[in-house]
Amino acid sequence: MNNFIFHNPTKLIFGKETISKLTTEIPLDKTILVTFGGGSVKKNGVYQQVTSALKEHTYHEFWGIEPNPSIETLREAIAAGKEHKCDFVLAVGGGSVIDGSKLIAAGIIYDGDAWELILKRDYTKGQTLPLGTVLTLPATGSEMNSGAVISNKATKEKFAFYSKHPKFSILDPQTTYTLPPFQVSCGLADTFVHVIEQYLTTTGQSPLMDRWAEGILQTIIEIAPQIKENQKEYETMATFMLSATMGLNGFISMGVTQDWSTHMIGHELTALHGLTHAHTLAIVLPGTMWVLKEEKGDKIVQFGQRVFGIEQKGTDKDSREEAIGTTINKTEQFFKSLGFKIKLSENNIGEQTIKEIEKRFNKREFKLGENESVDGAVARQILEHVK
Amino acid sequence: MNNFIFHNPTKLIFGKETISKLTTEIPLDKTILVTFGGGSVKKNGVYQQVTSALKEHTYHEFWGIEPNPSIETLREAIAAGKEHKCDFVLAVGGGSVIDGSKLIAAGIIYDGDAWELILKRDYTKGQTLPLGTVLTLPATGSEMNSGAVISNKATKEKFAFYSKHPKFSILDPQTTYTLPPFQVSCGLADTFVHVIEQYLTTTGQSPLMDRWAEGILQTIIEIAPQIKENQKEYETMATFMLSATMGLNGFISMGVTQDWSTHMIGHELTALHGLTHAHTLAIVLPGTMWVLKEEKGDKIVQFGQRVFGIEQKGTDKDSREEAIGTTINKTEQFFKSLGFKIKLSENNIGEQTIKEIEKRFNKREFKLGENESVDGAVARQILEHVK
Repeated sequence: MNNFIFHNPTKLIFGKETISKLTTEIPLDKTILVTFGGGSVKKNGVYQQVTSALKEHTYHEFWGIEPNPSIETLREAIAAGKEHKCDFVLAVGGGSVIDGSKLIAAGIIYDGDAWELILKRDYTKGQTLPLGTVLTLPATGSEMNSGAVISNKATKEKFAFYSKHPKFSILDPQTTYTLPPFQVSCGLADTFVHVIEQYLTTTGQSPLMDRWAEGILQTIIEIAPQIKENQKEYETMATFMLSATMGLNGFISMGVTQDWSTHMIGHELTALHGLTHAHTLAIVLPGTMWVLKEEKGDKIVQFGQRVFGIEQKGTDKDSREEAIGTTINKTEQFFKSLGFKIKLSENNIGEQTIKEIEKRFNKREFKLGENESVDGAVARQILEHVK
Repeated sequence: MNNFIFHNPTKLIFGKETISKLTTEIPLDKTILVTFGGGSVKKNGVYQQVTSALKEHTYHEFWGIEPNPSIETLREAIAAGKEHKCDFVLAVGGGSVIDGSKLIAAGIIYDGDAWELILKRDYTKGQTLPLGTVLTLPATGSEMNSGAVISNKATKEKFAFYSKHPKFSILDPQTTYTLPPFQVSCGLADTFVHVIEQYLTTTGQSPLMDRWAEGILQTIIEIAPQIKENQKEYETMATFMLSATMGLNGFISMGVTQDWSTHMIGHELTALHGLTHAHTLAIVLPGTMWVLKEEKGDKIVQFGQRVFGIEQKGTDKDSREEAIGTTINKTEQFFKSLGFKIKLSENNIGEQTIKEIEKRFNKREFKLGENESVDGAVARQILEHVK
């Protein structure tokens, strides 16, 4: 086990009819900038619950934080927050709104251009306004971590940025009842791959973290068909929402190495083709597993055995290969069961994109993954595996 | 899943040679009261590491916080903290030192007698000094929760008290190498039963919390014999230390009911016979399982299957009874493997004690457990089962 520091001060307020807690969670003397994405929260009743909870508070609304939030939009939000002298930010929405609001909370009290904060990357010790969130889409874990991913349309860049954890996050599973099924599939796949990035590395680093990561994976696999059957069953959606938050809040990464190469390749597919983030992960992950099956082999066997119940038949090399293969196939089947087209060709992506990603990785001198083995050439192999 | 609020702001600093982090974790302008138990930290090098890390700080030492810390001792510590105008408390030791220091941190800035704070029970919103800890005995989880149990020798009372979480806790697994093996067994049993109290209730409340609880139980069962073999193997002791903290920091109790009747019966055995806390749990738990095997039956079967690999042979009543019986026997065997004498008679405890506990439970009108079914009569049945 590696040395680690764990610190997650976010207060999680979870359950039915909890949005009303906003009334007491935000002090009355604050001036709040409430940030939103599109208008879906007006249709599902979340907007009404938020404004009703804040009826004694002073707040200003900012609408239009888009998926893959851009610095261009966030600059407008920051200007609005400065204009109204806001000293609290409340994000209402999914991961994009929350990610964007982390930058807004920093930018409102920053004198320069907010993109400068992104370029610092680590702003965990910087000054920010307090941020609260009302989550409506389980997926990114942003509601209980310090990370955010912000895009720059002008320069076609997309960077991760680390700031403060939200002070509190309110999760009412009922808000997920009306999500489009594709977004639910994305949330399930996103959670699954978040866990895999922290788990599918070297065996024997932390038996407990292994069990907890496997626990989330087992749970996601168990509930996915139930959710497909009925997206308005409270218990299932509550389990989904809790799993998504626990998948990326640091609880399963104590003392272990992490990978994240699937994410880095996936980000390029989004940048080049506009594919939804989770969809790119469903495409790339099986390729990563096939290409890195030597270095990740022991953990793939453990994953297969404990999560999918795949028993390796013997101790010989062929039995091991077979167990690894069956496990990767099961992983692919899981993504297919969520409705994803998991081959590049099915998404009209070909050699030109592979070439471009290889070039970008080489140019940035990337050596990704827990063993720093994923460079441009390996990224090419991974993508060729999922052609 | 029940509604819940989760908030655990403790910063966990975990790993080799981490005690030196004290230097930067406590601001230099603080006046620290450093609290200790007996002298074992002078023998294992922890005291030297602490004082070396604090050589630029102003601090005063208070020695002698005993197992089952008493208000009598803690009053002395509070007086010392007031005298030296301390504004930070650093606990160095196991659960008793940390529990006691939670009261000290509240008492130093409280004008009345500290026992009044205990009688408030919930002091989570009260004023306290910041508390840091250096843990030397994995067991109670006190290093990452807000609870404490404080005794009053004069009135022969023992009460739980909820205050603030430690600001930070430093866990260096190397500090456990020289613990007496009996204390290590106690730490393992304590962790095991903490998890059981949060898990062995009603099935289907939270699939994820179930997996995480089972993950800790599996891990504890896996490492127990390894620790017996070699108490100086870093990886095993690190896993033990991490498991103990995760067993009682709220991470596995989100949205689920809890039991704690085994603990309440166990506390009486400690009060009446001075038995070590964890030892009482090892005695009582199998009795609780036997007596409550109807209401807890489904969860016992799940526990047996997932943690011990016990498969129920058929769907009939007899197969179920058999699976339940085998699971309870396995639980007993686990405690025996830790070296505990798990029958009351082996510990010279008989009918008189059972009678007294029944009387106390009845007098307090206890209805304990997740179904409020454990009263004096049921406590008697539980104890008769482990005669």
